[in-house]
Amino acid sequence: MHSKFKIHAPDQGLADALQHKIDQKTKPRGVLGQLEKLALQIGLIQQRLDPQFGQPHLLVFAGDHGAARAGVSAYPQDVTWQMVENFLAGGAAINVFARQNGLHLAVIDAGVAHDFGRRPGLIHAKVASGTANYLEQAAMTVEQCELAITRGAEIVRNLASNGCNIVGFGEMGIGNTAAASLMTNCLTGMPLADCVGRGTGLNDAGLARKQALLEQALTRYRSSGGGNAPLAVLAEFGGFEVAMMVGAMLAAAEAKMVLLIDGFIVSAAALTAAKLFPALTEYCVFCHWSAEPGHQAQLQALGARPLLDLGLRLGEGTGAALAFPLVQAAVGFLNEMASFESAGVADKG
Amino acid sequence: MHSKFKIHAPDQGLADALQHKIDQKTKPRGVLGQLEKLALQIGLIQQRLDPQFGQPHLLVFAGDHGAARAGVSAYPQDVTWQMVENFLAGGAAINVFARQNGLHLAVIDAGVAHDFGRRPGLIHAKVASGTANYLEQAAMTVEQCELAITRGAEIVRNLASNGCNIVGFGEMGIGNTAAASLMTNCLTGMPLADCVGRGTGLNDAGLARKQALLEQALTRYRSSGGGNAPLAVLAEFGGFEVAMMVGAMLAAAEAKMVLLIDGFIVSAAALTAAKLFPALTEYCVFCHWSAEPGHQAQLQALGARPLLDLGLRLGEGTGAALAFPLVQAAVGFLNEMASFESAGVADKG
Repeated sequence: MHSKFKIHAPDQGLADALQHKIDQKTKPRGVLGQLEKLALQIGLIQQRLDPQFGQPHLLVFAGDHGAARAGVSAYPQDVTWQMVENFLAGGAAINVFARQNGLHLAVIDAGVAHDFGRRPGLIHAKVASGTANYLEQAAMTVEQCELAITRGAEIVRNLASNGCNIVGFGEMGIGNTAAASLMTNCLTGMPLADCVGRGTGLNDAGLARKQALLEQALTRYRSSGGGNAPLAVLAEFGGFEVAMMVGAMLAAAEAKMVLLIDGFIVSAAALTAAKLFPALTEYCVFCHWSAEPGHQAQLQALGARPLLDLGLRLGEGTGAALAFPLVQAAVGFLNEMASFESAGVADKG
Repeated sequence: MHSKFKIHAPDQGLADALQHKIDQKTKPRGVLGQLEKLALQIGLIQQRLDPQFGQPHLLVFAGDHGAARAGVSAYPQDVTWQMVENFLAGGAAINVFARQNGLHLAVIDAGVAHDFGRRPGLIHAKVASGTANYLEQAAMTVEQCELAITRGAEIVRNLASNGCNIVGFGEMGIGNTAAASLMTNCLTGMPLADCVGRGTGLNDAGLARKQALLEQALTRYRSSGGGNAPLAVLAEFGGFEVAMMVGAMLAAAEAKMVLLIDGFIVSAAALTAAKLFPALTEYCVFCHWSAEPGHQAQLQALGARPLLDLGLRLGEGTGAALAFPLVQAAVGFLNEMASFESAGVADKG
């Protein structure tokens, strides 16, 4: 995997000039809080004092999970393809928020157990019709995992060659909070119980059942000698949509794009990618705190402080789409605000 | 004051129908967190299942403070009028954020110690050229306070008659965090030390000096028999921009508009207005957590949980402008998302 991607941290040579530009704006130093840090980060990513966004995209990766049929989710597996149809028809939350905030939406069939046919707005990248059930065997083979990563990278390289330099990540896949919980346990060392939540609405009994099933999956993996190497964990428990996001994120960081990271499942992909290439996080904007408990462990491992904390737990990339105006505001104040000198305003006495 | 405004809480008759509409959207129940509460609130304010925003405005009220010359701010008093000029020229942070997010910006001279002449974009409502110094006497007379409230109400009634139904509040006034600290102490009972912060950038010595001066002002007020009645506190310590916001907020709630409440100083006005008419808070969207420590006490007294927590402490209405896309997203999902039935998606099993 390391030979396939070249990811370097942004050069810091422009940092002083960017900070000076931020500090000369007609406002006391530091008072725009996280937006000032964002402006610096994005300037460094683009290596420009006047960063610009081009062709902003939100990618929703969809895939099915073999374990979904065992009862790790409150919803039936068919909801994955039904929601993909909803995305294509423009009626889901992510459609509304992407439209409102000027993000191009693309939906990727990474491995849904359904035949959509050729459809406008749908990128066909299906690895297989859903993963295997990790309660019995690895969710995917090593070859399938690599194929998903490669296809994810191709999608983003294609966007980059068309002028896109900021990309948000979202996902749909019944059962994928369970997959993300298992991955988070392996990648952060946090106890499984602290990584498991209600997903999109389990009740107490459902949550207990999910925890028991995931303990069982983990025991099977450990007793077969399974360790914590990121790609092994990804193949064992991940969905095709998660693996494809890992490839897409690696390609995005390689292309020096800004990555908008959504909640718990997208962060599982980001954590996997960052374990492979730690510099990846410097290209990431963490968009919101998910209400899923395992997200906290991921964010701690990633050293991240998200922008929004609205109690969201939907996925689809909704947190990324909702945070995009804040990211634009960071670039906006850097480019458009007057300086103390240009505006004739006295600086602090 | 009670005879001048009629403010009633929104009728709750539509609550069940609104909640049903929210719950039938193609998403698990509750997963859009605070946005779902917002959608319900705004639907009730407008008494519509499909609320719409018209002519969104952001009003920046500016005024000078007699106490500013005593050293309660890191900036010289002239910065108030210089920043008003910056607003009129379009170069301040609030200009950038209001432009980006589609808010009409209006700047109001509530009482700046400067003659601007007639200027496009500036509303002349000057009560006097700055308040008196509350270290020596009340900041304003009762008559001045009432005039400011009346003029603020007129400005908003004029907007409402032109189709505006959502209004954000911002302010500019060197020394007005000090005024807000004194008001917050009187209106919430929190110790003054917990209500005083660095404003727009005081160092440790400056903060200690500010605290000592405000203790002195409070001692003078108490020893002259001053109590905690909201209008008495407003006249004693407030700025003309704060008093004018109180009137503007009361008129906005009376007209059943949505009020976007910014940070510490705007919340001092909201707290004053809510002490007079508790139903006012039902029209308020609290937009961000200010980094000023006294904001916490205000929010607790108002029972408010703001949308953003970005470490902002600029004022001008920047937090309100930055939160506006989230408010639009709440209305957007309510109006534009498909229902389970219309999209053919299975609900929870």
